[in-house]
Amino acid sequence: MWFNVKADLTYDFAGPAETMLLLEAARTPDQAVHSESLVITPEVPIARLDDSVTGERRAVFLAEGRCRIVYDAVVEVLARDANLRSAAAVSVRDLPAETVRYLMGSRYCPSDRFERFVDRQFGGLQGGDKVQAILDWIGAHFDYEIGVSDALTTAMDTFVDRAGVCRDFAHLTIALCRAADIPARAVSAYAWKLRPADLHAVAEVYVGGRWRLVDATCKAPIDGLVRVATGRDAADIAFMTIFGKAELAAQAFSIRRVRPPAGG
Amino acid sequence: MWFNVKADLTYDFAGPAETMLLLEAARTPDQAVHSESLVITPEVPIARLDDSVTGERRAVFLAEGRCRIVYDAVVEVLARDANLRSAAAVSVRDLPAETVRYLMGSRYCPSDRFERFVDRQFGGLQGGDKVQAILDWIGAHFDYEIGVSDALTTAMDTFVDRAGVCRDFAHLTIALCRAADIPARAVSAYAWKLRPADLHAVAEVYVGGRWRLVDATCKAPIDGLVRVATGRDAADIAFMTIFGKAELAAQAFSIRRVRPPAGG
Amino acid sequence: MWFNVKADLTYDFAGPAETMLLLEAARTPDQAVHSESLVITPEVPIARLDDSVTGERRAVFLAEGRCRIVYDAVVEVLARDANLRSAAAVSVRDLPAETVRYLMGSRYCPSDRFERFVDRQFGGLQGGDKVQAILDWIGAHFDYEIGVSDALTTAMDTFVDRAGVCRDFAHLTIALCRAADIPARAVSAYAWKLRPADLHAVAEVYVGGRWRLVDATCKAPIDGLVRVATGRDAADIAFMTIFGKAELAAQAFSIRRVRPPAGG
Amino acid sequence: MWFNVKADLTYDFAGPAETMLLLEAARTPDQAVHSESLVITPEVPIARLDDSVTGERRAVFLAEGRCRIVYDAVVEVLARDANLRSAAAVSVRDLPAETVRYLMGSRYCPSDRFERFVDRQFGGLQGGDKVQAILDWIGAHFDYEIGVSDALTTAMDTFVDRAGVCRDFAHLTIALCRAADIPARAVSAYAWKLRPADLHAVAEVYVGGRWRLVDATCKAPIDGLVRVATGRDAADIAFMTIFGKAELAAQAFSIRRVRPPAGG
Repeated sequence: MWFNVKADLTYDFAGPAETMLLLEAARTPDQAVHSESLVITPEVPIARLDDSVTGERRAVFLAEGRCRIVYDAVVEVLARDANLRSAAAVSVRDLPAETVRYLMGSRYCPSDRFERFVDRQFGGLQGGDKVQAILDWIGAHFDYEIGVSDALTTAMDTFVDRAGVCRDFAHLTIALCRAADIPARAVSAYAWKLRPADLHAVAEVYVGGRWRLVDATCKAPIDGLVRVATGRDAADIAFMTIFGKAELAAQAFSIRRVRPPAGG
Repeated sequence: MWFNVKADLTYDFAGPAETMLLLEAARTPDQAVHSESLVITPEVPIARLDDSVTGERRAVFLAEGRCRIVYDAVVEVLARDANLRSAAAVSVRDLPAETVRYLMGSRYCPSDRFERFVDRQFGGLQGGDKVQAILDWIGAHFDYEIGVSDALTTAMDTFVDRAGVCRDFAHLTIALCRAADIPARAVSAYAWKLRPADLHAVAEVYVGGRWRLVDATCKAPIDGLVRVATGRDAADIAFMTIFGKAELAAQAFSIRRVRPPAGG
Repeated sequence: MWFNVKADLTYDFAGPAETMLLLEAARTPDQAVHSESLVITPEVPIARLDDSVTGERRAVFLAEGRCRIVYDAVVEVLARDANLRSAAAVSVRDLPAETVRYLMGSRYCPSDRFERFVDRQFGGLQGGDKVQAILDWIGAHFDYEIGVSDALTTAMDTFVDRAGVCRDFAHLTIALCRAADIPARAVSAYAWKLRPADLHAVAEVYVGGRWRLVDATCKAPIDGLVRVATGRDAADIAFMTIFGKAELAAQAFSIRRVRPPAGG
Repeated sequence: MWFNVKADLTYDFAGPAETMLLLEAARTPDQAVHSESLVITPEVPIARLDDSVTGERRAVFLAEGRCRIVYDAVVEVLARDANLRSAAAVSVRDLPAETVRYLMGSRYCPSDRFERFVDRQFGGLQGGDKVQAILDWIGAHFDYEIGVSDALTTAMDTFVDRAGVCRDFAHLTIALCRAADIPARAVSAYAWKLRPADLHAVAEVYVGGRWRLVDATCKAPIDGLVRVATGRDAADIAFMTIFGKAELAAQAFSIRRVRPPAGG
């Protein structure tokens, strides 16, 4: 499927502040960016700090005063196999070296705390079946509700609170999978059919020999995710990090399905 | 300086369990490994999941029953400039892409929480001067004391408790530096002159265009650190991660200075 | 000084819900309630669960639908000695039995965590001098700022965040005093001259043989506080606890100084 | 049933330190203290700070050097009705005023965090049935295991960790009951048949018009508990609080059933 994704952000910066954007479509094997533009007004030099391992694209610039950022891209999402059931567990010694870090606890996913719970609750399962059971359990026991969580909320908080938003569902999925020795990480994405339109946060797990996107919220189809940033948790994938002070003036994200060009 | 480092560990594994070792000397520009051996008894196949970016060496194997691990190496530590004063701050857009992740909060270093404190306490300083002021402040306000902290202790806990061990001092250094927009990470090392002999945990900060090891505990000279693992915090640099259950039977680390070979 | 205090609250209750009000002026030796009225519309039976030890007044009723609560009272605040300097420390064995509970950690004031800090920072001082030093230290190192804290914020969070509102300043004062073995508790009050008008949260410490109100925010004079609830921390002194669900429609608190009646 | 309870403690105090003991049998309607002695060696004056509401007995004295404390008592435990099923829920407006504080969150029992979980898991039940369901659920999902928890562990930690000791089981029971608007508190007790012999921590809930002891660990019969201290949680019921520094030299608690005197 082909998508046109857009972000249109306007911020007011009190003084000059370095700003890092993580809102461009990632360059990964599971999607192809056919065209894109990133326009910052007023124009400023953009440094690229792209991550060559995850394909995450990072633009850094010095912002000042009113600043408008517009990103527009046409991206093709290649077929994703959403069926976890077929995916075998991967032993640690067969993991690619770069997946090891996603086994460890992180800012919002203190996975070391959940080992006993995971063992008690999902102990008899392996690989994709285990991940699916975790997703089902979260879906059955947690409310999707705005206002319960905030920027400090960890997977431990959410486990107790029994409610949260996409970010919290992703964090809990990640924490429980890592506690089961399954590499798991956070991904931000433009999400087709998500209502209201916004950047979405989902989890990605390494089973059956490759990374697979999963979404415990079930609010948007996996095939309609245009991935942006990849990291250990929300600390890594914020679409905008301002190393200074700024105020939001306006902000909109959108995604719509488009027809592939003839022969596309 | 040249060093001979040794680790000698014996564990009893209840059942077969994958085990990851992070205790070999890293392959980094600031040290040269002249000879080394890693012997696991009984012998098992070792998978290598080395990290090509940090030079961290990871050995993974399937352990069972009584298992003895002996590492022995001769390592030359190249000159390290411990003088932070000369080191300028690096703007985010001039950072190497792979340092960006070390600006973000992690399991034990929730740096987002310390921004106001850092701004109030160290606001007028930059770069290496700021790092030095942070190290001095920690040294003046915190007790090195065993028993106050444990495996769950975060930099936030330590900031309140006002005491901890090397790992806690490193975490607090890292959290405060990141809150000041200085990339900071955790490093484990064989530490010459450390009493009692043990693996040491220190911090590493990116100022003046390169990574620099720093140690708020002042318990071992920087020049005598043979670095092993590199990560966001203690969650990444444990010398042994057992994906299963085992009991420690015996454990010893040592480091001694050795004479370079003639012409070495 | 005499004051007229008023609270005027309107809530919409989804279904019938028990509701506890802690907004009437307390019956304590340091103030006299000369007249008062509590009117709930529509009229409902009110159960009184007043606390005979602290003088805190609690009204409990079953609310349903739209409910308006109006409290109006004339209260005389008797002279309060704000000078802490003259107040000696009280040894534990000389404390009144009912003050002992205010030495212990509570929901938002985990005072056990602050012992080393208090000893390092204020170790040479005693009694009222120690409390004054704590108040001064908080005033110098913390910003009064709305939006940093929320209903989950503890004194430990505030100690790290270096900012908060009256409730947070009170919690930190309480936690540090208890860590110094000084009984300390939380008090809600109508606060003369507080801008904007609202119920205020302050601390109360037991030194020099009696309880003394203190306010690290310095936003309202101690002599102008009409005390309402008394407890270990904010968990105990919420002006309204709804055992069910309701939405705020309107809410206003006020206090103005009034002339005592002739001969009053 | 009649019991002989004993505590025999020896501590070494570095300097003079006030010490509060909560290890004498409480004076409550559900037990009768027929004889008792508290001997401190060397002899010191003992101040009594007994709590007249809970019947908790507190002895405070100034200790120095080696100090031995021996308590010996014969206590009759009156019949306790362990059947929760018959106990109706009590509406807040029918609660005795002194039970209100046990509805609120405390140091180790942040009950405000568990409201949604309790509502989802136990929502259809009331009063004693709800308490019993909470006890059963804890028994089924948590391991009694030493070493998982420590003095900082809260009910929230335990809820995640899925393991703990008696204190943790009591805290979780208390937190969940309060979240269900049932007053709940912590009680320390000499516990007949507890192995190994030690002071035990249990919970007490207010249903069916009176306080009832409950024990999610099921490690000792309710009828064999000789109650000592009563408080919001472990912060209030420590058997010994030292306002200074001391080291444990020896410590033993015991309880044995004794024959009532003829005619007793």
